[in-house]
Amino acid sequence: MNLSWLQTPVIAINEAAAAAAAERQNQLTKPPGSLGELEHLVIQLAGMQGRLRPSVDRIWISVFAADHGIAEEGVSAFPQAVTGQMIMNFVAGGAAISVLARELGATLEVVNLGVVNDPGEHPGVRRFFIAPQTHNSCLGPAMSEAQFEQALAAGAESVKLARENGAELFIGGEMGIGNTTTAAAVACALLGESPSVLAGAGTGLDEAGIARKIAVLERALARHRHAGQALEQLRCLGGFELAALAGAYIAAAQSGLPILVDGFISTAAALAAVHMHPGTRDWMLFAHCSHERGHARLLQALQARPLVDLGLRLGEGSGAATAVPLLRLACALHDGMATFAEAGVSDA
Amino acid sequence: MNLSWLQTPVIAINEAAAAAAAERQNQLTKPPGSLGELEHLVIQLAGMQGRLRPSVDRIWISVFAADHGIAEEGVSAFPQAVTGQMIMNFVAGGAAISVLARELGATLEVVNLGVVNDPGEHPGVRRFFIAPQTHNSCLGPAMSEAQFEQALAAGAESVKLARENGAELFIGGEMGIGNTTTAAAVACALLGESPSVLAGAGTGLDEAGIARKIAVLERALARHRHAGQALEQLRCLGGFELAALAGAYIAAAQSGLPILVDGFISTAAALAAVHMHPGTRDWMLFAHCSHERGHARLLQALQARPLVDLGLRLGEGSGAATAVPLLRLACALHDGMATFAEAGVSDA
Repeated sequence: MNLSWLQTPVIAINEAAAAAAAERQNQLTKPPGSLGELEHLVIQLAGMQGRLRPSVDRIWISVFAADHGIAEEGVSAFPQAVTGQMIMNFVAGGAAISVLARELGATLEVVNLGVVNDPGEHPGVRRFFIAPQTHNSCLGPAMSEAQFEQALAAGAESVKLARENGAELFIGGEMGIGNTTTAAAVACALLGESPSVLAGAGTGLDEAGIARKIAVLERALARHRHAGQALEQLRCLGGFELAALAGAYIAAAQSGLPILVDGFISTAAALAAVHMHPGTRDWMLFAHCSHERGHARLLQALQARPLVDLGLRLGEGSGAATAVPLLRLACALHDGMATFAEAGVSDA
Repeated sequence: MNLSWLQTPVIAINEAAAAAAAERQNQLTKPPGSLGELEHLVIQLAGMQGRLRPSVDRIWISVFAADHGIAEEGVSAFPQAVTGQMIMNFVAGGAAISVLARELGATLEVVNLGVVNDPGEHPGVRRFFIAPQTHNSCLGPAMSEAQFEQALAAGAESVKLARENGAELFIGGEMGIGNTTTAAAVACALLGESPSVLAGAGTGLDEAGIARKIAVLERALARHRHAGQALEQLRCLGGFELAALAGAYIAAAQSGLPILVDGFISTAAALAAVHMHPGTRDWMLFAHCSHERGHARLLQALQARPLVDLGLRLGEGSGAATAVPLLRLACALHDGMATFAEAGVSDA
């Protein structure tokens, strides 16, 4: 595998810009600290963007779609054909992430990494077709080395496009029937955690369905118990979109583009990225804690403090998109509020 | 007191519209329930606005400013002159709520109910001057009956203006040095709760300052222990802006205008409003759980599920304004997403 690019160092956070932003926050006409997380957010963004007054006007959202061989084990409430159908819904504007991207004025890129029900070439769909689906990881590695390399590169390519478009924030989303199972498998391997902790309802399994999913996860994990490193765990147990997300996160950190991480699947990919390249963590903000069982555990493993907890469990990048206005308002307050001196207001 | 208007019934929630919105949510291209609180929000708004597809484009924010006699007991980290100074900062555009209103395209009304450091007549300030400050409630009732009636009416007047401007959502905010003490006093009386549970740091008291605040609250509560009803508790222990907020909430519910409640002080006023007129509760959405000690207890008393928990403790309506994009995105998703049938996506 030619994965040497994964070793490129990430850009260092600009601590001076972060300190200057913190200093400005203390001069604004409010009790110090009274904007809570909105203060932390803007200070983090200042450090990432290397400027006193950061902004997140230009947002890039890449939704990676892919199918999963493990779906044949009956781990989803929806048929596999939905992955391809949703690609068309994304570009037609009817999916949640389509609506959110429109509302935010964000650029939405849909990447077809390989689906069983292939919609073919379509305007608005970037085709990076690796195979109709991964292999069933209960039976063997989900991806060949070549496929894995391609999937990681697909993510890096999205970040390149985002940067060429002047993006100030990167959001990764995903679509793939069966991918909460795949994400749980990767996370269990990375953390040495039991499937019963990380397997959830996904799109809507009942408790019997979750029990079945746990049994499938145990088989997959047993099959790949010798996959010792994060890279190999992601290849053997992951999916094309999980690898693409991990590749995108690493590439974003290497090029100094702030990342807003979405839900359970994106966080599993983020965890894999951080295991593969710890510096990537510096470039991640976490949007929300989802309703999917196991997400809180992944956030804890990343020492992440998500912005909202709204019981979302849709994926697609929708939770991250929902949190974007909080980042924008944090930036607007930081930029637009008067200082005590400017306003002639007495300090404490 | 001529407070007969407080008895006018509230508008009934349109349950048919709420049910139709819930039905639509189940047809949209996502796993049922996967938008969590965003689904609940839009269903509630549909019931309030009486239409399948609600919207919160036009937002009215009233910030009520007032000073408090109890400030002379040394319960705040900031000097009392700040209340009047902040009125000028609100209209000059430098305060947090000014920035947020601008970003949201909301109408911001600033109401001067009576401050010690009176800035006088100014464009953008609605003058409803009752007195420079309330009486110190440790020594006697905070408001005379006439003053209390005026303050309640000031809130109702703001709602009238909001409705004349076509507002689809009402946010009340406040500014007043000492008003976390006043709000805690009212809430302690309403709930029969101890000051040690509801007294917090406000704008930045240390533990010694909070202990002093608790002692002051105990004196005020003892002084008015015979004030049996919510109306009398609010008059004896409250402030002009607390009474205006309570009056505004009741008037909003009576005229069918949805309310987004802000932080500790606004929630204490909401609690008083609900005690005075229980139907008011149906028209309230709760924006956030603030960092102020005691806010969670007030939310619990109102069986409120706030949207976000960002460690905010600024007041002014700033927490409510910060949560507005979540309401707007909930409405946009509800309106703009395709159904399974429209998108040709297979159902579960």
